[in-house]
Amino acid sequence: VAEDHVIGVDVGGTKILAGVVDRGGEVGRTSSAPTPRDSQEALLDAIVAAVGEVRELRTAAVGFGVPSQIDQRLGTLGHAVNIPLAEISFRDLMTERLGLPVALDNDANVAAFAEWSRGAAQGTETMVMLTLGTGVGGGFVLNGRPYRGWAEVGHIVVEKDGVPCQGSCTGHGHLEAYASGHAADRIARERLGPGTTAYDLVAQGHPALAEIGSYLGAGIATLANLFHPEVVVIGGGFGVAAFDLLHPAAAETLRVEALAGARDVPIVRAELGQEAGVVGAALIAFDALS
Amino acid sequence: VAEDHVIGVDVGGTKILAGVVDRGGEVGRTSSAPTPRDSQEALLDAIVAAVGEVRELRTAAVGFGVPSQIDQRLGTLGHAVNIPLAEISFRDLMTERLGLPVALDNDANVAAFAEWSRGAAQGTETMVMLTLGTGVGGGFVLNGRPYRGWAEVGHIVVEKDGVPCQGSCTGHGHLEAYASGHAADRIARERLGPGTTAYDLVAQGHPALAEIGSYLGAGIATLANLFHPEVVVIGGGFGVAAFDLLHPAAAETLRVEALAGARDVPIVRAELGQEAGVVGAALIAFDALS
Repeated sequence: VAEDHVIGVDVGGTKILAGVVDRGGEVGRTSSAPTPRDSQEALLDAIVAAVGEVRELRTAAVGFGVPSQIDQRLGTLGHAVNIPLAEISFRDLMTERLGLPVALDNDANVAAFAEWSRGAAQGTETMVMLTLGTGVGGGFVLNGRPYRGWAEVGHIVVEKDGVPCQGSCTGHGHLEAYASGHAADRIARERLGPGTTAYDLVAQGHPALAEIGSYLGAGIATLANLFHPEVVVIGGGFGVAAFDLLHPAAAETLRVEALAGARDVPIVRAELGQEAGVVGAALIAFDALS
Repeated sequence: VAEDHVIGVDVGGTKILAGVVDRGGEVGRTSSAPTPRDSQEALLDAIVAAVGEVRELRTAAVGFGVPSQIDQRLGTLGHAVNIPLAEISFRDLMTERLGLPVALDNDANVAAFAEWSRGAAQGTETMVMLTLGTGVGGGFVLNGRPYRGWAEVGHIVVEKDGVPCQGSCTGHGHLEAYASGHAADRIARERLGPGTTAYDLVAQGHPALAEIGSYLGAGIATLANLFHPEVVVIGGGFGVAAFDLLHPAAAETLRVEALAGARDVPIVRAELGQEAGVVGAALIAFDALS
């Protein structure tokens, strides 16, 4: 059969991971290479090479998870975090260089689709994922369909006129300013002293994590009241490491702030590790074929 | 042709409006009756009678907009505001009594679908509507598809630990507590004295409306960062009446709080009047046929 596998590619800030994935979501051969961060040309070459490493004759499509906002209508990348890929027509460019159908989406969206298809949200119709890494990202599956849009969950307003965002966002009181690894690093420095990080808060079981968890719960309440999900999955480096310490306060705030029917939505830890990006990127590649 | 029209029914707190609608969205014959508020039986009978008034042999389906949370999987109503219809299997019950395919959705969702198909958001792929009435509701169309879920836009958190909600919601700092007609009535009483209402604020062009507009803008920013809509439509009795006074502050807050690319999303007034509910309910009835 011509279409029995696709390649999923996770374009991360430190490495590019490409893997062959079948319709059942099983990952076969993979390749990994460091992410060139100096020039766009070097990065594009490295991506093409990573795909070439695992490509076979029967490869039907390639999906990409990219740490960037995506304009799905144009297949272009907006502001990209950590990688030199801003403002290019990524989908057209890769379609031409690979000679295959190409799908792309934001890395957090792709992680959500992976948790839905093979991880902590398997078997649900509607799920929400939040990734707490350096920033806060997220993705949704709504009524059985992966949501292919911005889903900039880190930039929902949880406290009007609150803590300012970092970087290119001009906003205040966005979830990312309270519940990202970066925000937790700042809180660690304030509470524990210079040179400490979020992971010191986690190691000490520090009460600041309950405050962070409460903000996380307020953000989850907003999403629960919008989507009435069956489960909320927490991923990302900081989110997974701090999960047990964030969870009680997040669940308590959700119970108060969510509408009846959404108060007891389970908040669970992401189950997939390194391969999540490849699995989710493969899922959108299969979607591009149908 | 058997399927050339459907009936859309707007079940409102004061009246039931039913109308014949063709595939082009044109409204033909309508019927209107006061909403019985004493018993569920009387209300169901009145709904069936309203449909009977306009029904023809070639009626293919009936769609309902209801002021209630809906569980689409079960076709049941959750908490209903103002009408005696809580906790029943409305879809099954109406399917049986009418002998036709039945679709139902929340009244604010249905209003959003109507503005998308024939009103202020016509021609867009992704739009958000907020209805500022007694409460705050809303609905979305995402990537060309009406979103059939909770969309409880009034209960997104805009100020953690802020003003408590009224009624059955136990939350704090939800958009509804700042930007509903009910909230504006409260603010009018505080600023203008007993017996005054939101409409006195509007009549005076009172600066309190700029504060309300700023909270509205924060809520719109959350939705803009999640969905990157092409337009945001403001409807509802209070929203339409106060639109010109709410708009400047809402647009200014959106410019600061939204991510690049969503800062200049137009915020526009709803265009459809009384018939919006019928048109939107007809749209979901046609969807139920396909």
